[in-house]
Amino acid sequence: MEQAPTRRRGRGGGGAARRAERSAVSFETAKFIERNIPNFEVLTEEALEIIENNAEKVLEEIGVNFPDNPAALQRWRDAGADVDGERVRIPCGLARKLCETAPPSYTQHARNPARTVEVGGKNLVLAPVYGPPFVRDASGGRRYATMEDFRNFVKLGYMSKWLHHSGGTVCEPTDVAVNKRHLDMLHAHMTLSDKPYMGSVTEPSRARDSVEMSEILFGKDFVAENTVMTSLININSPMTFDDVMMGALEVYAQANQACIISPFIVGGAMAPVSVAGTLTQVLAEVLAGIAYSQLCRAGAPVIMGAFVTSIDMNSGAPTFGTPEASHITYGAGQLARRLGLPFRSAGSFCGSKLPDAQAAYETANSLNMGLLSGVNFMLHSCGWLEGGLVSSYEKFVMDADQLGTLHHLAAGVQVDENAQAMDAIREVGPGGHYLGCAHTQANFKSAFWKSDLLDYKPFETWEDEGARDTAALATLRVQKLLSDYQQPAMDPATREALDAYVAEKKAAEPDSFM
Amino acid sequence: MEQAPTRRRGRGGGGAARRAERSAVSFETAKFIERNIPNFEVLTEEALEIIENNAEKVLEEIGVNFPDNPAALQRWRDAGADVDGERVRIPCGLARKLCETAPPSYTQHARNPARTVEVGGKNLVLAPVYGPPFVRDASGGRRYATMEDFRNFVKLGYMSKWLHHSGGTVCEPTDVAVNKRHLDMLHAHMTLSDKPYMGSVTEPSRARDSVEMSEILFGKDFVAENTVMTSLININSPMTFDDVMMGALEVYAQANQACIISPFIVGGAMAPVSVAGTLTQVLAEVLAGIAYSQLCRAGAPVIMGAFVTSIDMNSGAPTFGTPEASHITYGAGQLARRLGLPFRSAGSFCGSKLPDAQAAYETANSLNMGLLSGVNFMLHSCGWLEGGLVSSYEKFVMDADQLGTLHHLAAGVQVDENAQAMDAIREVGPGGHYLGCAHTQANFKSAFWKSDLLDYKPFETWEDEGARDTAALATLRVQKLLSDYQQPAMDPATREALDAYVAEKKAAEPDSFM
Repeated sequence: MEQAPTRRRGRGGGGAARRAERSAVSFETAKFIERNIPNFEVLTEEALEIIENNAEKVLEEIGVNFPDNPAALQRWRDAGADVDGERVRIPCGLARKLCETAPPSYTQHARNPARTVEVGGKNLVLAPVYGPPFVRDASGGRRYATMEDFRNFVKLGYMSKWLHHSGGTVCEPTDVAVNKRHLDMLHAHMTLSDKPYMGSVTEPSRARDSVEMSEILFGKDFVAENTVMTSLININSPMTFDDVMMGALEVYAQANQACIISPFIVGGAMAPVSVAGTLTQVLAEVLAGIAYSQLCRAGAPVIMGAFVTSIDMNSGAPTFGTPEASHITYGAGQLARRLGLPFRSAGSFCGSKLPDAQAAYETANSLNMGLLSGVNFMLHSCGWLEGGLVSSYEKFVMDADQLGTLHHLAAGVQVDENAQAMDAIREVGPGGHYLGCAHTQANFKSAFWKSDLLDYKPFETWEDEGARDTAALATLRVQKLLSDYQQPAMDPATREALDAYVAEKKAAEPDSFM
Repeated sequence: MEQAPTRRRGRGGGGAARRAERSAVSFETAKFIERNIPNFEVLTEEALEIIENNAEKVLEEIGVNFPDNPAALQRWRDAGADVDGERVRIPCGLARKLCETAPPSYTQHARNPARTVEVGGKNLVLAPVYGPPFVRDASGGRRYATMEDFRNFVKLGYMSKWLHHSGGTVCEPTDVAVNKRHLDMLHAHMTLSDKPYMGSVTEPSRARDSVEMSEILFGKDFVAENTVMTSLININSPMTFDDVMMGALEVYAQANQACIISPFIVGGAMAPVSVAGTLTQVLAEVLAGIAYSQLCRAGAPVIMGAFVTSIDMNSGAPTFGTPEASHITYGAGQLARRLGLPFRSAGSFCGSKLPDAQAAYETANSLNMGLLSGVNFMLHSCGWLEGGLVSSYEKFVMDADQLGTLHHLAAGVQVDENAQAMDAIREVGPGGHYLGCAHTQANFKSAFWKSDLLDYKPFETWEDEGARDTAALATLRVQKLLSDYQQPAMDPATREALDAYVAEKKAAEPDSFM
């Protein structure tokens, strides 16, 4: 599979490469969403000011921790913060001031320029699930994820029309050593897809490896001047910036590569059990984190992240698709826009163990509010199951199909003469029907979003075909996509260099599963 | 079952009635939703004006049909319309002017005053599915609905906390004669529930029966002065107002009972295949229909309805939960608010044959946009399956549970001192956790919406208990609710009078299944 068609780009090439190029299939990917609809805002001006003032108080009076990171403490001291042990207290206004050098939007380049994305403004970039140690499918049930699963999810992402980004840890490949799996993961994103991708954050050295592999893929000069990765830096909420994540952030910021700086909050556990309290902490944390990114390199591209959900106080389980999670996300979007920064939140969140109705209710609640809250980068936009413990094959294609609704919703409403359709209303008149009228004939193909997965068949046909539910249809779609998959073309020299880099790095140290 | 506990109200009563009252269980019903969040609006001022101007043109130049209804044509003639055969052309501005006497909101009384609802303004009243000839449950599959099913759905509605209204034809009881089933249906709503209900519209005489039965339930004087029914008058789109529906509207309007006047549109079939074109037709139709209600009785309470969905042009099947349906509903909400009238739209819409993920995605898309589009009366808010052909037991309780999210979303965000939670953030500090802090202990019970149905259990527990999906959990909930059901108390004399009315009416004419 990995010796599939290749394509040379601008470095010359022989007949074999050209033949390979002709045989390579390119799968259609929709352009990232450019919203032509308003954002939905739940916080009043007064509420926003209260939260912003309280966040400054949190930073000045309580402060944040940067443990085991003397260089970070020194940067904060130099910037004018009050550093006491690992605690950093940031005078009112300083963090927000430092955030001003972060760009309001940035371009993340893909190796296929048609798939380059703009992150920020009115745009929404959709990326798949990130992080689950397990996978689930209809035939194999729930099991630890492997590198084969990882490659399958990258292929599914590549072939998903409404997905703009290949993501990062689409599942955790537990059969590869912890200290080497980032190499295989990046190699998979780079070679099995041509969409933009994320870098490793689990060690600063792995962030450096990610930059070096990107330099092979894009060229060293290109990477020096352009952003080719957006990586996920989680804050250890409440208000702790651990040295591993900060080490990765330092590498990426200094290389001018983008990071999502994101509180990771289950409300009531890592933040107060109230929306306003959680938003206060979220804002304090992102102000500190983004300010720190700008201390590492002023102008480094960053996204204000907010992973927030609610909790079931009876079981302690995080809950998803809930109204409080929506309130927090709508509010966080407003705070991000007032900061002038790209915003990451929402996703195909659910707590369900199966790709069933619960999964779909919770996911649809989350996807819809994600669009309307003005999210610019939606990680986890498909494939998330069981509170993020599981990457689901079926749910990946189910969610990826629903992402089409976000594209069409975001397009807004046309009112040009064709859309007004007055000729159609005149032609049909009272008591008629529009199925055959000229306006319908001219417009029906593009008029309505249409699922590539869901069942629209007559009852009898559906019954004759086995009365399949959505999960069963999704299983068929997964099989079809994986069997239709064709690898995007790549310059053989690039491919060889990537292979060699991974092999060399892997040989340089023993496997570790710690 | 129908001889269950009763309660006398204000007409004296003996020991048996008082004992019955003590044993009667009242199930909790949430108050109708009072929105504390903004509406979501997709149409610009310019787009709204274009649509409003075009709707006036449609009424003036094309007109609407009132077939087989000489009295209606005379009313229109008297009002200044141009009547040509059954075609009524309404001069620009006349219909909108006539709509001005319709109240911006109204009170629909329930026999239990605690369940009386206010329809209009920032309120949202939730009512169950209406009209399906089939039912489906896990054990019996899909089958024709019976009166027993009807009673079961009324019981489920009565016991659903987030449902404010008992609805109307919760399923079509096909085992009762067509000319008599309205009597049994109203009897069921009146005796098995104490929530507000809808009247019959399938014949003007059945509307009169509905008024007379309501007079027995509430007292004749009360009904003369108050609205105790909200009934569904569908427009035969495009632009046809059939005499049966108009006959029912005439009865209700003259009795000061409320009607939803509602285009019934599958876009591309009954309206143009564009959002703006459909909205133009919707507005023209409701302007004509509501104007006509005011010609029957100025001041009669009415709701501007809009049942609109998209179509799959390949199969001709209506499709639900689509972005175009959302655009139309958001736009229709804006048009309704500019008309100053209550607005009915959205619901638990889906095309799926099963209560599966498709059903839930589509339903959640519809419910969320229904809340945000400013709907005041949401018919079909739970139980809808297979494009409205089926009332689903499982989906009824699944949707009814999700309606809780709308209540919590609509409540908006508090920013009082308790909600700001600054003491909690100070108490916990960086690196701590909030589970045990004072603020969490004081607030956790009311902080987060919690499903009464969905699975929040640890994976191992869930697996040990049979790895049930949402539909399986819903089956259990249906069984539990029906087994826990207790009839609300009713004055025995009222009950006897209702029984006698139904018996007498049934005896007066032979069964008809036409």
